[in-house]
Amino acid sequence: MSTTLQVPVGRVARPRGMRTVRVALAGCGTVGRELVRQLRDGEAEIRARHGLRFELVSILVRDPAKPRAVEIDSRLLTADPDAFLAAEADVVVEAIGGLDPALRIAEAALGAGRRLVTANKALVAAHGPRLAALARRTGAQLDFESAVGGGIPVVRALRDSLGLTGISAIRGILNGTTNYVLTRISEGWRYADALADAQARGFAESDPERDVSGQDAADKVRILAWLAFGVAPESLRVRRRGIVPGADRLARAAAASGGVLRLVAECVRTDEGVVGSVEPVVVSPRSGFGRTLREENAVVVESAWNGSVRLSGPGAGGAATASALLGDMVCGGLRLPRPGATSAPAPADRRGHRWVVTVTGRCTDEDFLSRTLARAGIVAESVVRGDGDVYVRTTPHPWSRVDLATRMLESSGCAPVVARLETGRD
Amino acid sequence: MSTTLQVPVGRVARPRGMRTVRVALAGCGTVGRELVRQLRDGEAEIRARHGLRFELVSILVRDPAKPRAVEIDSRLLTADPDAFLAAEADVVVEAIGGLDPALRIAEAALGAGRRLVTANKALVAAHGPRLAALARRTGAQLDFESAVGGGIPVVRALRDSLGLTGISAIRGILNGTTNYVLTRISEGWRYADALADAQARGFAESDPERDVSGQDAADKVRILAWLAFGVAPESLRVRRRGIVPGADRLARAAAASGGVLRLVAECVRTDEGVVGSVEPVVVSPRSGFGRTLREENAVVVESAWNGSVRLSGPGAGGAATASALLGDMVCGGLRLPRPGATSAPAPADRRGHRWVVTVTGRCTDEDFLSRTLARAGIVAESVVRGDGDVYVRTTPHPWSRVDLATRMLESSGCAPVVARLETGRD
Repeated sequence: MSTTLQVPVGRVARPRGMRTVRVALAGCGTVGRELVRQLRDGEAEIRARHGLRFELVSILVRDPAKPRAVEIDSRLLTADPDAFLAAEADVVVEAIGGLDPALRIAEAALGAGRRLVTANKALVAAHGPRLAALARRTGAQLDFESAVGGGIPVVRALRDSLGLTGISAIRGILNGTTNYVLTRISEGWRYADALADAQARGFAESDPERDVSGQDAADKVRILAWLAFGVAPESLRVRRRGIVPGADRLARAAAASGGVLRLVAECVRTDEGVVGSVEPVVVSPRSGFGRTLREENAVVVESAWNGSVRLSGPGAGGAATASALLGDMVCGGLRLPRPGATSAPAPADRRGHRWVVTVTGRCTDEDFLSRTLARAGIVAESVVRGDGDVYVRTTPHPWSRVDLATRMLESSGCAPVVARLETGRD
Repeated sequence: MSTTLQVPVGRVARPRGMRTVRVALAGCGTVGRELVRQLRDGEAEIRARHGLRFELVSILVRDPAKPRAVEIDSRLLTADPDAFLAAEADVVVEAIGGLDPALRIAEAALGAGRRLVTANKALVAAHGPRLAALARRTGAQLDFESAVGGGIPVVRALRDSLGLTGISAIRGILNGTTNYVLTRISEGWRYADALADAQARGFAESDPERDVSGQDAADKVRILAWLAFGVAPESLRVRRRGIVPGADRLARAAAASGGVLRLVAECVRTDEGVVGSVEPVVVSPRSGFGRTLREENAVVVESAWNGSVRLSGPGAGGAATASALLGDMVCGGLRLPRPGATSAPAPADRRGHRWVVTVTGRCTDEDFLSRTLARAGIVAESVVRGDGDVYVRTTPHPWSRVDLATRMLESSGCAPVVARLETGRD
């Protein structure tokens, strides 16, 4: 037993061997600098429990001269991807986001047989299976726990335990920024102010458009579909609608239905294949999703044999994401499903849901509204007026029919916004 | 690509190689027979996604002649542990429970370098690190996801992701039977009827005493403390109080405090070391634990870097446990912390909590009650009368002081029952 270890509590594990792992870190923004801080503050505990010493050998940044919120040896900083990739590293951690130069870094690291740990959902959603195949060829490891659900260990749960057999559906609140915004709106804030607040708190992605449009959640649902069903993520058809335009009106429509608005992402196994969606959903405020507040994320995995398993926790913020990166750095290298052929046509989503269609303008005229809905084959369960809008709650219809009705209402100048209605569901 | 595979959905993974894994199963009760059923029903999907074919080679049962609820080749059944251990198996699955002959089976399997997958919390709590060390020596694998939290992947989450650094506390509802009973009591049932109902539904352990006394939850909290803090599970001091005696009175005391009763298990890192507890706790009905109903389990992992991560799902029942066993059978073999020296004295739990002390008899006399409490140094925040009992809500005190007061009240014939009060906590 070494006596030089500084272990915060007595009686924790002290492995005998000690291994140094050289780390090259791409990106030193919110996530990257938090990782640097955790590596420093957690050094003693990581040594004591895992027998590992992480040594930063290179950090790729846009501007090496920029002041940093965390103390970093400036000799490690470089703005040159080639110099970064030339550093002798055992693990490459990618916390840049986007596809360029992230894809190039990933390919170079895995191609050289190095372990890649990435927080990049867009990269994994677009190129995951290809990168996994490259890693298999070179004997490298690929991990991306932090790409979905922030600090919730949903990727490992699906890779190792839950993803085995019999999963029927995964439903989740996967974007912390929109959930923060929607929580604020339900507290009485307006959309623009709520978004500005989320950005000030550092929850928003570098481009908030990817959050509010549902693209970020769609990338994540593609990754979950890969892990749970073996579907090639880039081939999954995801019906995607964000919270814009019309976030304020959608929230009022939700309140008028006795619920609250959430951006729910799903992938569901149907008889025809796996279908995906990201869309505004009206849920009961007492439901699990209704009680998922602010930047929290939540994922529910439904399976025949294991019932409904729920994971929730911090879904945004540098500390949670960096903590998940660190977890991958210590563990790493578990199996990933190899997607099969992707040439089969993507299945249509024929599931029926109840919907709230919010309209204004000419459609506030009841006769005009009911004629238009009848032409689209939509049956209204109730029609409620409020705040210059009319809220139509429908009987169960597949999205395709509601989509058709929406287009007709749009061309009539009724500015429809649509949310799924799930107030009856837990 | 093989054309003989029956894959339930199109476009799932089809690994090329196919490996046969020979399985020896010890125990064919609720969990064992459900595993046999899942191996049969999931065969095509396990082949397609993981390239594995599981072949049962031996099943250890008490009475091979007994009729089984699932179709089993009777030639596989044996009542002889030696014959069972002599079978050529790659994986030994232990679903017997208890220490004998489970420990002997575990030592024989791991000693022979075979993979051991066990659902046995008592075994892992008492002998986990020793079995893990044996596995390391022989190159065998040891897995026990199903030992804690039924179908919730909490063991893997702690082994792989969350258990890395910075965990401050783990809190959970870890026993499905008591939670089922407490849920029923809050619906108006009496304890005895609720327990009989739980047993009829197959949630209760073979000996319900281990459930209601908190021993089962204490075993589980020892395992979680091992995974999260590297503490030797058998050395962890767990303050343990079950829901008996006095379940009905405890539940009424909870209701009088505006809360509901839950059996909460915890392990918490303090400055002096890791302390553990299993005890009745009054929680808000709107809190996460308050909304954990029936046989559901829930675990909250609190850490400095990752906030509060919550996992919940089916905590009891053969299907969920078997599903977790199957997960280990497919994955298997991840790292386990090696506990350090265990000779240090177990730390005292000095945390202050609010408590509800329920008394009857002489203590319903206000003067007598206040004198007795004052002698023990207990400060009452409020004293409420109801149903022949008096409910004393205290200001924050460590358990040691409340324990002293309880003994004094007991010797005065006041039949005290005590629950922790957490109605203010989410």
